[in-house]
Amino acid sequence: MKNWQYIGHENTPTGYGFHMAAGIRAGQQVFVSGAAAIGEGGKVPAELIGDVAGQTRATLDEIDRILREAGGSLHDGIKFTVFLPKTEYFRAMNDVWNEYFVDNGPTRSTVQAGLMIPEMLVEIDAIALLDD
Amino acid sequence: MKNWQYIGHENTPTGYGFHMAAGIRAGQQVFVSGAAAIGEGGKVPAELIGDVAGQTRATLDEIDRILREAGGSLHDGIKFTVFLPKTEYFRAMNDVWNEYFVDNGPTRSTVQAGLMIPEMLVEIDAIALLDD
Amino acid sequence: MKNWQYIGHENTPTGYGFHMAAGIRAGQQVFVSGAAAIGEGGKVPAELIGDVAGQTRATLDEIDRILREAGGSLHDGIKFTVFLPKTEYFRAMNDVWNEYFVDNGPTRSTVQAGLMIPEMLVEIDAIALLDD
Repeated sequence: MKNWQYIGHENTPTGYGFHMAAGIRAGQQVFVSGAAAIGEGGKVPAELIGDVAGQTRATLDEIDRILREAGGSLHDGIKFTVFLPKTEYFRAMNDVWNEYFVDNGPTRSTVQAGLMIPEMLVEIDAIALLDD
Repeated sequence: MKNWQYIGHENTPTGYGFHMAAGIRAGQQVFVSGAAAIGEGGKVPAELIGDVAGQTRATLDEIDRILREAGGSLHDGIKFTVFLPKTEYFRAMNDVWNEYFVDNGPTRSTVQAGLMIPEMLVEIDAIALLDD
Repeated sequence: MKNWQYIGHENTPTGYGFHMAAGIRAGQQVFVSGAAAIGEGGKVPAELIGDVAGQTRATLDEIDRILREAGGSLHDGIKFTVFLPKTEYFRAMNDVWNEYFVDNGPTRSTVQAGLMIPEMLVEIDAIALLDD
């Protein structure tokens, strides 16, 4: 049995027939699955449909929640990958990103890639390193 | 000279003019290149053409083979990225995934992205952490 | 305050309203943001427009520069992800790749994904492990 801390909650994909963890802590490293603005029933909440900024906030909040459960926070994230279905969403995503990361932002790659649910406008995964 | 263990075999891209390793172990970490259902001659085997489930099995088996050569197995994988050329392939991929990861699945991101060979229907890369 | 070394220079996205680092070293690990052939003003230099090979060289040189500032070099890179807007760019990218990685290439995933600036023909991110 591995000495890994598995992190999930009822609104993560784990609850919907996907055998995966929302996050796993192994030592000081935490790996976070592609997160998104997914609410009850595995769906994008109605009030976030079409709202790139709102979905970005919900996604970064979700990553923060996972990392807090692992003993850290969003700001322990060191490598992020941002997937956007359309390049036109970049500015709205980046404006919210800049609110969350004011100083000393982490590393990031941003690419245009299709997402698994049509209503999802952003998906972000992360690797974090907790302080010793 | 690095103390890294390079992993490859004749059917990996290393054998076809791509200067890359199928996997590299460094300490307890193993990094696995984007794997796919590639057989002899660097091609998708005829019997797997158009078969998302079969290609997913072959891909996870290939990652397992690489991780075994590194001293572990598929279940040491902690972070996976799944690339699918079409979102419609998600269910068939995920059904096979769930066969391989019954309990305590790893972290995963799944996005729609084009692959380098038209016959490839799934590509998966991984980071694994071996037990000490 | 984290004991992380932040790496950037004026031509990285950090200089253009993106709150992110070009690279971060944490212990012996270095994470490199999606790099590309971006020059002054955050634009692809005129002489590299439409030139996949030239942009690949500029991108790998940029990753090397970041890793040198972190105390290593391109050849400490262990996991790379290559994003190409068109699969037809693969051969030109791979030919340059093979010039940079002659022996013992690292792990790599290559997928077709749209990039955030239309003139960008390749983006590459990396995880590196420096020697102890």
